[in-house]
Amino acid sequence: MINVGVVGATGYAGAELVRILTGHPDVNLTILTSRQYAGQPFESIYPAMKGLIGLDCETYELARVCDKADVIFMALPHKLPMTFVPDLLKNGKKVIDLSADFRFSDPDKYESVYQPHTSKELLSQSAYGLSEVFADQIKQAQLIGNPGCYATCILLPLYPLIKEGLLDTSSLIADAKSGASGAGRALSLTTHICEMTESFKAYKVTGHRHKPEMDEILTAAAKTPVDMTFIPHLLPMARGMESTTYASLKKNITSREIRDCLSDYYAGCPFIRLHEHGKAPDTAHVRGTNFCDIGFVLEETRNRIVIMSVIDNLGKGASGQAVHNMNLMLGLDETAGLHAIPYPV
Amino acid sequence: MINVGVVGATGYAGAELVRILTGHPDVNLTILTSRQYAGQPFESIYPAMKGLIGLDCETYELARVCDKADVIFMALPHKLPMTFVPDLLKNGKKVIDLSADFRFSDPDKYESVYQPHTSKELLSQSAYGLSEVFADQIKQAQLIGNPGCYATCILLPLYPLIKEGLLDTSSLIADAKSGASGAGRALSLTTHICEMTESFKAYKVTGHRHKPEMDEILTAAAKTPVDMTFIPHLLPMARGMESTTYASLKKNITSREIRDCLSDYYAGCPFIRLHEHGKAPDTAHVRGTNFCDIGFVLEETRNRIVIMSVIDNLGKGASGQAVHNMNLMLGLDETAGLHAIPYPV
Amino acid sequence: MINVGVVGATGYAGAELVRILTGHPDVNLTILTSRQYAGQPFESIYPAMKGLIGLDCETYELARVCDKADVIFMALPHKLPMTFVPDLLKNGKKVIDLSADFRFSDPDKYESVYQPHTSKELLSQSAYGLSEVFADQIKQAQLIGNPGCYATCILLPLYPLIKEGLLDTSSLIADAKSGASGAGRALSLTTHICEMTESFKAYKVTGHRHKPEMDEILTAAAKTPVDMTFIPHLLPMARGMESTTYASLKKNITSREIRDCLSDYYAGCPFIRLHEHGKAPDTAHVRGTNFCDIGFVLEETRNRIVIMSVIDNLGKGASGQAVHNMNLMLGLDETAGLHAIPYPV
Amino acid sequence: MINVGVVGATGYAGAELVRILTGHPDVNLTILTSRQYAGQPFESIYPAMKGLIGLDCETYELARVCDKADVIFMALPHKLPMTFVPDLLKNGKKVIDLSADFRFSDPDKYESVYQPHTSKELLSQSAYGLSEVFADQIKQAQLIGNPGCYATCILLPLYPLIKEGLLDTSSLIADAKSGASGAGRALSLTTHICEMTESFKAYKVTGHRHKPEMDEILTAAAKTPVDMTFIPHLLPMARGMESTTYASLKKNITSREIRDCLSDYYAGCPFIRLHEHGKAPDTAHVRGTNFCDIGFVLEETRNRIVIMSVIDNLGKGASGQAVHNMNLMLGLDETAGLHAIPYPV
Repeated sequence: MINVGVVGATGYAGAELVRILTGHPDVNLTILTSRQYAGQPFESIYPAMKGLIGLDCETYELARVCDKADVIFMALPHKLPMTFVPDLLKNGKKVIDLSADFRFSDPDKYESVYQPHTSKELLSQSAYGLSEVFADQIKQAQLIGNPGCYATCILLPLYPLIKEGLLDTSSLIADAKSGASGAGRALSLTTHICEMTESFKAYKVTGHRHKPEMDEILTAAAKTPVDMTFIPHLLPMARGMESTTYASLKKNITSREIRDCLSDYYAGCPFIRLHEHGKAPDTAHVRGTNFCDIGFVLEETRNRIVIMSVIDNLGKGASGQAVHNMNLMLGLDETAGLHAIPYPV
Repeated sequence: MINVGVVGATGYAGAELVRILTGHPDVNLTILTSRQYAGQPFESIYPAMKGLIGLDCETYELARVCDKADVIFMALPHKLPMTFVPDLLKNGKKVIDLSADFRFSDPDKYESVYQPHTSKELLSQSAYGLSEVFADQIKQAQLIGNPGCYATCILLPLYPLIKEGLLDTSSLIADAKSGASGAGRALSLTTHICEMTESFKAYKVTGHRHKPEMDEILTAAAKTPVDMTFIPHLLPMARGMESTTYASLKKNITSREIRDCLSDYYAGCPFIRLHEHGKAPDTAHVRGTNFCDIGFVLEETRNRIVIMSVIDNLGKGASGQAVHNMNLMLGLDETAGLHAIPYPV
Repeated sequence: MINVGVVGATGYAGAELVRILTGHPDVNLTILTSRQYAGQPFESIYPAMKGLIGLDCETYELARVCDKADVIFMALPHKLPMTFVPDLLKNGKKVIDLSADFRFSDPDKYESVYQPHTSKELLSQSAYGLSEVFADQIKQAQLIGNPGCYATCILLPLYPLIKEGLLDTSSLIADAKSGASGAGRALSLTTHICEMTESFKAYKVTGHRHKPEMDEILTAAAKTPVDMTFIPHLLPMARGMESTTYASLKKNITSREIRDCLSDYYAGCPFIRLHEHGKAPDTAHVRGTNFCDIGFVLEETRNRIVIMSVIDNLGKGASGQAVHNMNLMLGLDETAGLHAIPYPV
Repeated sequence: MINVGVVGATGYAGAELVRILTGHPDVNLTILTSRQYAGQPFESIYPAMKGLIGLDCETYELARVCDKADVIFMALPHKLPMTFVPDLLKNGKKVIDLSADFRFSDPDKYESVYQPHTSKELLSQSAYGLSEVFADQIKQAQLIGNPGCYATCILLPLYPLIKEGLLDTSSLIADAKSGASGAGRALSLTTHICEMTESFKAYKVTGHRHKPEMDEILTAAAKTPVDMTFIPHLLPMARGMESTTYASLKKNITSREIRDCLSDYYAGCPFIRLHEHGKAPDTAHVRGTNFCDIGFVLEETRNRIVIMSVIDNLGKGASGQAVHNMNLMLGLDETAGLHAIPYPV
């Protein structure tokens, strides 16, 4: 049994980590921190957990965290992790950070959309936690930059096709839609139920911070600069994300070749589920899980491919993938703790 | 490992059984029947289960079902089970029936709201599957009449208080609210999303069939005829049920005595969670689980108690309780397969 | 054309007033105040109104408000109106206050649930704005205390029956359910869409501030002290309110007599729609309107009546009723500006 | 006052027509037909209309319809109108058909996605009812083919830009999302609330019937064959439609030029609301109205424009536009009956 802790346990990603780790057969959840709720039982903040967890929330203290846990999940807003993580690593801990702080290789790209980076030296050590794609690096790493939810949803189907050189990289357009939990638990008019009822809209249309994260990964895969169009939208629901991604094909290929490219790349990957040509995946079918379901259509007359991928933004898009990465880092069964079966309705 | 089958696997209660049983550590799910979808892979009907189950739906055939399974869950509309169950029992099978066919002791009561009963002789053998209340009978039974969802939600908090003689039985009023999955997967305008958006209403206000089921149980507990007021309402959501139940007190008691009555009765019951006085439970906190969360308020100036109880109508209100009953019948750990932790959001 | 203003125009009740008054044939909307959004165009706060209104929000200033408007709607939190209203009345203005500040006759009752009242002398002058019931007083008044949404929904069907002496006042129980807009636009976790998805629960179960408001009105109607049970619940939707209200009958009466009592009392009232016995009203059918739809069931064996009433909590429960009261005060057609036809879906 | 009738009044588009026409100052609604509900009061089918309409539904009979109405709205599934409309026209009636039967100029295009057309000769007489674009033709026509909802939402912003030659027509991609009312009132699992809760997905990804309708209009505007990519998605809500439409620019232009092109084209059009560059429109802000709100982003580094447009699929996407077209045909104020102000929430 490995001792693990969650720093920032009372946000939605943190609470989902608590849920998954509580049911994980190989770990003990030993410490939860929360600035806002320090001193309060976690189950008083999330009554859904009543009787299922005995821990109280604590203020973050380095020595206490290091004493209690060997693997630490950071579920804080970006900017805070870069101040905490160096000391955790010095104490020999493994860290999985769900913020953007350790996702980038290039600090300039990070700083172009976030703020000055105070731990740049760690960027070369951290692995980008897109579990299926970078499993080898993840297994070796002490520090994981867990991907953004949009990046996870869009990159998973795109990466193998770009890597294989099948797509015109200048044509990439990702039209993505997210449930409201992606905006977090912090209060804002945007997530007020009255404002979201019967509402659908695009947002951050002139630039969302997940775009440079995706461009960096795709640029490395394509070996040519990628500058995609990415338009996020807000769905009137809590959990679930879909991206419909459009690209022109570089050459004539069949739907069979597309499918083979994806199924070969993800052979043996238990959380990737590939639909047959022409069948669209549904966010409801991956809710509460670590699955990414992928469908596609080849538009032959227009020489274009349409890719549809769905994840649970809090699951595969955040906490599920973080636990998956922990499993890889620790050499556990990669599905440990992640056997949730989605609800039929 | 015990072989189990689900008859009527493609309705919502059936599919929820499939979900729970697929993750149950002590059973093999070996056969699924569905008249409508015979011959089709279950995962094509419920793509959420893609890759998680290999079974095809089959037409119900007695010999085949008996050959494949030792415990059979019946998730059919009432009237059908009474024709199938006698033969299953003759073949030595254990049967948990989710319809109303075996819930009543008194065939007249059944016939007053359903139709003529063709297997009346079995009513005295079947146990009423309100797991915590009738555990002793359930453990001995070959046949379980699994309670209605409303009955489960309303009876669990009420039963101990009535049994103890604390409530004026002539004053009972249950104002209950259910998510739409209680109406099943069959198509109707009522459950069309456009009709339910921003809609809330009472229904079957002149008589719902779960009422005589509750009256029969409470009459036995109270040792005096009970004829409660029961008004069900439809919530614009899929899963979840709440009942706010009102009763006058027979004598002066304190909130501490009420709480003790409930906590003593349900001592050691892992699925009953009792809130402190004045705190209302939330359907979201039991979603996807077998929990029943209970709260109450004692209105001293009005000599009245207000009880609030919540369940997932498909979980504790149907399939979760059915699996709980199987665990009791087979002498398994009663929580086996029922460890789902509710989502934080 | 009468000049009207809305003080506190950017909360939900204020914005609904703006919507209704913009379409009202007999008034000019001349001034909107908002502390938070002073200086900004109203349509930038509510883009739904883009192109439909030219006013900017202003800070409240007595002279300016009196200069611009002859009728003033106050849509502020309680406590503020009692400081503004005396000066408005001194300037000869008519005031319709949507807060609780002028709903009570008895200042002690107000102070028992709110705070010290600094304009007690006005309580005897203000009319309680339950339009159909107190139309005569409303027509004469300079100041209206517009009723709470719950009070409106529960009192409308109850008042005539209590007045007529048909109900046992000690038996009154109102189980009420409200959409989230009743909680207003101020941010809180309660109205975060993620917290409300698939959620239903009771709240303020040990005491809601609308209860003494209702008790005072019913006590006057019954000529005996009324102390009802009132349990509010929160619906996972934006607009709409239902109350299922239970009472024991004082004497044997028929459903026809009940219906006659209500239909006689509300004869000629265009916003009261009475359903036939046994038919439950639906919140969706009154959305966006000033209607109150009422249904009931007589439970003869239990000597009990079950009343179901629905309103739009922002319409009849707040801004619709406020405009209705203005129409009465000004001697306009009482339906002016209130002809909205509810959406079919 | 003009006498008007609705054929197929009980579907969602029909009922929305009834709602709008009931409040229209210049028309009398004189006849409603419905095969399914013939003989029943319309208000018993749509209780939201209780007390607001006195008409019963009738079976369609040519003589009766011609006797009662001079303008007839057809809100039937495609295929039926082509059999009814010729006789109505022969009787001198004006017809606005909401099906696809009279939207196409080219019968082959119609037949490629629907079925054999039995009134081809009428296609050259009918005007395509995209109100703002084809107002001149509409004013002259006896027969209108009212556009599909997707076509309305996508074509309104696209048409002027294509006409002006600003866009590379081979690059057009429309990623559109619709509320469930677009699927109509007929029962299907797709619109079961349990299937749609927390669900979002693409559908008909290999070909939706609105695509050739759009291609035909755009081909005429571009004077070159247009074959766009169109992927519709289903939103978990009742009313509202958004399209995010992508196109490459033919030449360097500024956002100001884009905006001018649109605002010049739609100058004086009361139902088109243009947002400033970079601001995304919201379906909630047009709910229940005939508005089309349009926003856009110019992506200069990628030489691409992203257009976002929203409508109410039952309003501007169906019945609102149909009434607008009637107003044009009859020479009425084009906004008559269409002054609905969207709800603030």
